[in-house]
Amino acid sequence: MSELWYTEKQTENFGITMKIKRTLHTEQTEFQHLEMVETEEFGNMLFLDGMVMTSEKDEFVYHEMAAHVPLFTHPNPENILVVGGGDGGVIREVLKHPSVKKATLVDIDGKVIEYSKKYLPEIAGKLEDPRVEVKVGDGFLHIAESENEYDVIIVDSTEPVGPAVNLFTKGFYAGISKALKEDGIFVAQSDNPWFTPDLIRNVQRDVREIFPITNLYICNIPTYPSGMWAFTIGSKKYDPLQAADERFHEIDTKYYTKELHKAAFVLPKFVKDLTK
Amino acid sequence: MSELWYTEKQTENFGITMKIKRTLHTEQTEFQHLEMVETEEFGNMLFLDGMVMTSEKDEFVYHEMAAHVPLFTHPNPENILVVGGGDGGVIREVLKHPSVKKATLVDIDGKVIEYSKKYLPEIAGKLEDPRVEVKVGDGFLHIAESENEYDVIIVDSTEPVGPAVNLFTKGFYAGISKALKEDGIFVAQSDNPWFTPDLIRNVQRDVREIFPITNLYICNIPTYPSGMWAFTIGSKKYDPLQAADERFHEIDTKYYTKELHKAAFVLPKFVKDLTK
Repeated sequence: MSELWYTEKQTENFGITMKIKRTLHTEQTEFQHLEMVETEEFGNMLFLDGMVMTSEKDEFVYHEMAAHVPLFTHPNPENILVVGGGDGGVIREVLKHPSVKKATLVDIDGKVIEYSKKYLPEIAGKLEDPRVEVKVGDGFLHIAESENEYDVIIVDSTEPVGPAVNLFTKGFYAGISKALKEDGIFVAQSDNPWFTPDLIRNVQRDVREIFPITNLYICNIPTYPSGMWAFTIGSKKYDPLQAADERFHEIDTKYYTKELHKAAFVLPKFVKDLTK
Repeated sequence: MSELWYTEKQTENFGITMKIKRTLHTEQTEFQHLEMVETEEFGNMLFLDGMVMTSEKDEFVYHEMAAHVPLFTHPNPENILVVGGGDGGVIREVLKHPSVKKATLVDIDGKVIEYSKKYLPEIAGKLEDPRVEVKVGDGFLHIAESENEYDVIIVDSTEPVGPAVNLFTKGFYAGISKALKEDGIFVAQSDNPWFTPDLIRNVQRDVREIFPITNLYICNIPTYPSGMWAFTIGSKKYDPLQAADERFHEIDTKYYTKELHKAAFVLPKFVKDLTK
């Protein structure tokens, strides 16, 4: 019997390849090429424009690290915005914090939400929670129209090609600052230091111009390029490294711990050099 | 023009694939299948039995983390043994410590040493250092014949299939304990928590029976399975987490820092659970 393998080119000259059981859905949406695939190794996986977005097996890493670092840094996160993230994984983690009263998701592509609910129910299930408002629309415009509103904004975007290109600009970071309350915190996924060092360097530089506390933290995601994934954090008031220990309470995680919250900011030398 | 890609299956159902410029050397040695390949993304790479051993682009991570964690934990490392590691990368890092008087390399396969010198000179070059003794032979036997001799032993082996199978046994760890001085330290590469959790759990359990201080630390290596690589450390006296700060002096590294020395032991929750 023949085998079907899905190969993602992560750079021009390197990729990962996965044996698949079957393709669940494939569609050219208004914004991107969407594929939902059932793999042997990682369970169901979502691809956009040929790039891995999430997999059932390793999704917890990205979603926990995107949500818990800012939400444990803020002393009382109540109103949260997630830009992108239509698979619902960041929202699921956000809702684990009892302080959260409202979580808004703004994803430009309703099809991502629709098919995540259908094929990634463990990830997307919490989008139905009464505290969640789901908006299909342009995150850049939503940010531009918001002022002094959010405690935490998490940018869970695709790469800066295609629909997410506006989400990697100084204008966007300035808008985020305006949309945040005076003690707000912002986190954005920032690709990886091995293959996209310039992206990390540029985002750090741009965010630092706007947020008094800017830093970078990393985690390990097997299905993402290089296995090392970076997040930029920009904060108006609270330092993520000073997050008060007494605020860490028991939440159910598989990757994040209160010790890892701080260790994730201890960067390998060549990565630290990108933040200078 | 056609393109040549080299695919390594890291599990039955998952792999990495690399565009190659050319194959530099391929040979069935007495012990394993050796391939030296020039890749576009990672420079020259060594494969044994189809598994990535090292690449010019990311080799520094493995070699620094294998060497500097035990050598900075020991207050005065003078006599070092590397089992395996015929590419010479661990030896190169060991020699950065001015206290080191002698470093012995025992690799079972002389062909690995020979072709690493030829095609990976930046990695293998220090094998010519006068402080280094290179032995082509069985590391298991060398350990069995050594007593109260080494300050640090680093096991830089292939996976526990083929020639390295003896290097993942309780008998080997007992031999290492005997070969070490009374305050000696031992480090072994221990594969990755995502695809081989049982290996990590078993090695931790076996080493803990012999060494009073046993721990696990991790690093990120893009060309290794899952991008997260683990090392087991067993120590008779010195705790790697108590390594004295004043002993960290300036050495030339790209990954290791004195802060990362400790942060590397802060494990994601699902990894920490493997060490219990």
